[in-house]
Amino acid sequence: MIDSVSSLIETTGIIAFTISGVFSAMRKRLDVFGVLIIAFVTAVGGGTLRDMLIGHTPVSWMQNIRIPVIILITGIISILFKKYIRGFKVTLFLFDTLGLGLFTITGIQAGLATQLHPAICLMLGTITGCFGGVIRDMLLNEIPVLFHKEIYATACIAGGIVYLLGISFMGESIAELLSIGTVCSIRIIAVKQKWSLPPVK
Amino acid sequence: MIDSVSSLIETTGIIAFTISGVFSAMRKRLDVFGVLIIAFVTAVGGGTLRDMLIGHTPVSWMQNIRIPVIILITGIISILFKKYIRGFKVTLFLFDTLGLGLFTITGIQAGLATQLHPAICLMLGTITGCFGGVIRDMLLNEIPVLFHKEIYATACIAGGIVYLLGISFMGESIAELLSIGTVCSIRIIAVKQKWSLPPVK
Amino acid sequence: MIDSVSSLIETTGIIAFTISGVFSAMRKRLDVFGVLIIAFVTAVGGGTLRDMLIGHTPVSWMQNIRIPVIILITGIISILFKKYIRGFKVTLFLFDTLGLGLFTITGIQAGLATQLHPAICLMLGTITGCFGGVIRDMLLNEIPVLFHKEIYATACIAGGIVYLLGISFMGESIAELLSIGTVCSIRIIAVKQKWSLPPVK
Repeated sequence: MIDSVSSLIETTGIIAFTISGVFSAMRKRLDVFGVLIIAFVTAVGGGTLRDMLIGHTPVSWMQNIRIPVIILITGIISILFKKYIRGFKVTLFLFDTLGLGLFTITGIQAGLATQLHPAICLMLGTITGCFGGVIRDMLLNEIPVLFHKEIYATACIAGGIVYLLGISFMGESIAELLSIGTVCSIRIIAVKQKWSLPPVK
Repeated sequence: MIDSVSSLIETTGIIAFTISGVFSAMRKRLDVFGVLIIAFVTAVGGGTLRDMLIGHTPVSWMQNIRIPVIILITGIISILFKKYIRGFKVTLFLFDTLGLGLFTITGIQAGLATQLHPAICLMLGTITGCFGGVIRDMLLNEIPVLFHKEIYATACIAGGIVYLLGISFMGESIAELLSIGTVCSIRIIAVKQKWSLPPVK
Repeated sequence: MIDSVSSLIETTGIIAFTISGVFSAMRKRLDVFGVLIIAFVTAVGGGTLRDMLIGHTPVSWMQNIRIPVIILITGIISILFKKYIRGFKVTLFLFDTLGLGLFTITGIQAGLATQLHPAICLMLGTITGCFGGVIRDMLLNEIPVLFHKEIYATACIAGGIVYLLGISFMGESIAELLSIGTVCSIRIIAVKQKWSLPPVK
C-alpha cells in the first residue's frame, strides 16, 4: 500500500513540478515547445542529474515512459487552462512541497542503493529535489531562485536528515512519513513567516 | 555506399554546426579560445548530452579524434575567413538543416540500440539535433533560441517520426532519406513562410 | 612522498577554488546556501563533468567524503572571515594557479587511464582545470570569464602538453613538476604583463 501511495505522491510531485515549470516559462514569452521543455526539465532535471552523477543510466525517465507522458499531458493542460489553474495557488504549493519531500527521499534511496556515504546520499536527495528548478532557471537565463530566496533547500536537507535517522532507528515507512512531514512543516512555516537565509554581501 | 554518404553528411553537419557556433560566439566579443569552445559545444553538445543520458561513455567524440580535429580546423578557418564565409548564408543554412536531419537519426539509432521506447528514442533524436544550440545559448548567456523562435525542433521531431515509421515499414536507407527529406522540407518552408509556433503568454 | 605532496597541493587547489567561488558568489547577493553551492561547483565542477564524460561514476567527490568536507569548512570560514581573506590576494592567486596545474594533471591522468587519445586527454585536463569556473559563471548568469579574459586556459593547455611530453620522455614526477611549473610561469607572466588572447569581432 505504501508503494502505491508513494507512486501516487510521486506522480502528484511530477505534476506539481511540471505546472511550476509551465508558469515560470510563460513569464518569458517562449513558444509552446519551449514551455514544454522547461516544464520537462523542471520535473525531471534533478533526478536526471542525480542519475548521471551516480552512473544510473539510461536515466530513470528513459526507462519509464509513464513519466514523459504525465509531463506532456500536464504541460498541455496547464497551457490550455492556465487562468483556471493559477487559482489553485495553495493546492499547487502543497503538491510542490509534497513532491519536494518525495523527490528528496528517492534521491537518498538511490544513493544508499549505490553504497554511498550518508552525507553524499543527503546531497543526492537535495540535488533530486532542488536541481530541476536550478536547471530551469539556467535555461530561462536567471540566477537560480534556490540560491537567494526562501527556505527551499533547507527544508529538503532537514527532511533528508530526518529520513536518514529514521531508517536507522525506525522502519522505512515511518521514516518516509516523518521526512515528508518535516519538509512540509518547515516549508509551510517558512513561507508563512517569510523566513529566508541571510544574504552574504 | 550509404555509410560513406552518411559519414559525408555527418561531417558536413558538424562543419555547419561549428560555423554556426563561431558566428554566434563572435557576436559576444569572446577571445579565440572562447569562440572555439562555443563552436565545439554547438557541434557536439547534443550528442554528448545524449551519450551521458544513456550511459554511452566515454562520449562519442572522445572515441573518434576525427571529430575534434574537424571542429578545430573548421573553427579556425571560419574565424580567419569570416567575411568570406558569411556570404554563403544559404549554403550554410542547407548544411545546418542536413546536419540537423542526420543528427536526429543518429540520436534515434543510439536510443534503439539501447532498447529504449520509440518515444524516448524520438526525444534522444531531438536532443542530439537541437541541444548543442541550447548549451551554446546557455554559455552565451541567452535564452535558447530553440525555445522561442522558428520551427527548428518541430522539423526535427517530424523527421524523427518519419524515420521511426520508415524503419518499421520500409528499409533503413529509405527511412533515412525520407526523414532527412522531411526535416529539410519543413525547415525550408518554415523559414520561407516565416512560420513559428505560437508564443504562450 | 610525491603522493602526499600531490594530495597536499590538490587540497590547497580545492581550497583556493572554493574561496574563489565564495568571492564570485558574494558579488551576487546570494544567501548562505547559494554561496556554498557556487563554491562547491567551482571546486569540483570540472572534475565532475570530466567523470560524467568518461563514465567514471559515481563521480570522484562522491567516493571521497573528504572533498565535500574540505569545501564546506573552507566555504564557511571564507564567508565568516571574508574581509581578512580578501587581503591574501596574491596567496590566493598562487594557490589557484597551483590548483589549476594539478587539476589539469589529474584530468589527463584520468583520460590516460581510460585509454583515450592524448589530444582527448589534454581536453579532459583542460575541462578538469577550467570548467568548474565555467559552470560557476553559468549559474551566476554571466558569460564565462574563461571565454573572454586572461590567459587561463592557455596556461592549462601548455602545462598539459608539457606533462604529456614529460611522461613520454622522463619520469612521472618530473613531468608533474615541469607541468605545474609551466602553468604557473605562464599564468603569472600573463597577469603581470596583462596578456590576453585577441578578441574575435
